[in-house]
Amino acid sequence: MGTLRVPNVVPSADQDCERLKKAFDGWGTDEKAVIRVLGCRTTSQRRIIKDRYQQLYNESLIHRLHSELSGDFGKAVILWTQDPPERDARLAKDALRIKKKGIKHLEVIVEVACASSPHHLMAVRQAYCSLFDCSLEEDIASTVDMPLGKLLASLVSSYRYDKEVVDMSVAKSEAATLHEAIKAKQLDCDQVAWILCTRNFFQLRATFNCYKLNYGNPIDQDIKGCGNEDLESLLKMVIWCIDSPEKHFAEVIGKSIIGLGTDEDSLTRAIVSRAEIDTMKIRGEYYNMYNSSLDNAVIGDTSGDYKNFLMTLLGAKI
Amino acid sequence: MGTLRVPNVVPSADQDCERLKKAFDGWGTDEKAVIRVLGCRTTSQRRIIKDRYQQLYNESLIHRLHSELSGDFGKAVILWTQDPPERDARLAKDALRIKKKGIKHLEVIVEVACASSPHHLMAVRQAYCSLFDCSLEEDIASTVDMPLGKLLASLVSSYRYDKEVVDMSVAKSEAATLHEAIKAKQLDCDQVAWILCTRNFFQLRATFNCYKLNYGNPIDQDIKGCGNEDLESLLKMVIWCIDSPEKHFAEVIGKSIIGLGTDEDSLTRAIVSRAEIDTMKIRGEYYNMYNSSLDNAVIGDTSGDYKNFLMTLLGAKI
Repeated sequence: MGTLRVPNVVPSADQDCERLKKAFDGWGTDEKAVIRVLGCRTTSQRRIIKDRYQQLYNESLIHRLHSELSGDFGKAVILWTQDPPERDARLAKDALRIKKKGIKHLEVIVEVACASSPHHLMAVRQAYCSLFDCSLEEDIASTVDMPLGKLLASLVSSYRYDKEVVDMSVAKSEAATLHEAIKAKQLDCDQVAWILCTRNFFQLRATFNCYKLNYGNPIDQDIKGCGNEDLESLLKMVIWCIDSPEKHFAEVIGKSIIGLGTDEDSLTRAIVSRAEIDTMKIRGEYYNMYNSSLDNAVIGDTSGDYKNFLMTLLGAKI
Repeated sequence: MGTLRVPNVVPSADQDCERLKKAFDGWGTDEKAVIRVLGCRTTSQRRIIKDRYQQLYNESLIHRLHSELSGDFGKAVILWTQDPPERDARLAKDALRIKKKGIKHLEVIVEVACASSPHHLMAVRQAYCSLFDCSLEEDIASTVDMPLGKLLASLVSSYRYDKEVVDMSVAKSEAATLHEAIKAKQLDCDQVAWILCTRNFFQLRATFNCYKLNYGNPIDQDIKGCGNEDLESLLKMVIWCIDSPEKHFAEVIGKSIIGLGTDEDSLTRAIVSRAEIDTMKIRGEYYNMYNSSLDNAVIGDTSGDYKNFLMTLLGAKI
């Protein structure tokens, strides 16, 4: 369950557009009004507002937001207002533009492939082709080194069955296959990729359970020390996103806040992309992991309109 | 260009449904009327007829066709009346059920992956999941032996960019990569699969051209004798489907007709799936390959309602 709060009586799209237009026009911008409208509408409501705004004022709402808002607040509101497939396609493109060691910046691609519905992943791939004149998997393969690139490209190519169909004998035999690969320190073998990239999420959760029952440790622990640190981190991310996305996102938020400075991009991404899905569960998981409140952490590390917007998405009244 | 002929003035869906209902009811079935209606309507018109038929008579048109028509004629009309993604998902499932040596029966999967639009392939994967409770790639991997299964699964997972964007330097370097793999008799290496499964069709045609210019032979000739006959045949099929689908389908039709007996399933599949796409080109290519007329070949090898239906799809008036 998400934390987005939509008012009991939702104004018409025309009324919302008028309030936004009024917030933009005149001296300065009324950021609070922008938050009160856009921060309290579902994806489909925001889509209608965007279409209607274009018709009424002959200008793109996204362009107007770009020119009215700035900083982390502006970025967050724009991400939130974009259609989710377009948002994730753009985030993936940005990630692939970054030339950095490690794999932290590739996190969003794993999230799209492993913590989203198969349908959403397909829509992201379509949006990516429309926006960037090549396929997501082509860009991955040409920018991410092997064997990570190969695994990531396979992950985004998946179209998993999306209902709860689990075959326990498959779970047992594939847990054994994964265990063999880990023992042999061959995390990059085809079978590991094939299992993780093809099986449905329910089946994989059963396989991970089987692994723990039969071999003693959770699989994400056992992959540590297999010889390729980046591949280990990527696989750990894949396993968490499949097994319990809320744990993954609680960690993303925790890491973005804890320590010196704040990683606003990660914090924004996690809250914006999950506010309609599972921020409620993420909040619980955050408490389990860090023994403190997610809401207090966000309040403590952000300020101004940016803080107000994130807290609105987390269900606070402003 | 296809050969499907739609009348200048198309009756309303209600009129079409009435004519179909009349053709079914009473003593025997009026097959000619069925052909005149369904054989002369586009995919979207057939979809509307199917929906309207269900509403008007509270029965499924497909079920009724099953009970009214039989043999190759019945199979052909039903394939033609199904939604194309569902049709191809069912054909793929049937192909994967066949336990036979060789790869001829897997042809339809290559056609869906390499001779259809990326959008159609995606729709087929969605239909497959809805119909069969698992993903197409899972079924492929569990029924087709390696390395063929791996290649086929990657092919159906592709979502290629679908506009004409070609990078000649990529064409040159990937032609070289393919040439190296062929020289080393390593048709099953990751790079070959990656190039064929990911690049857009226009780019791949440029790569195949480059190959011929730089290394003398067409690539589909050079792959012969690489050591794994099934893999060679599969790759030849992939290359033809990408490079010139009309050549592939002309050959499918030719092989289904020439020699002892007729392979009606292949003949039907080729004509039904291409009648709205490129049967005009297939006709030309057939003449080039066999120095005889495709229409005469179909007339000579089929009979009765089945012949009339196929010829209607090929643009003849009956």
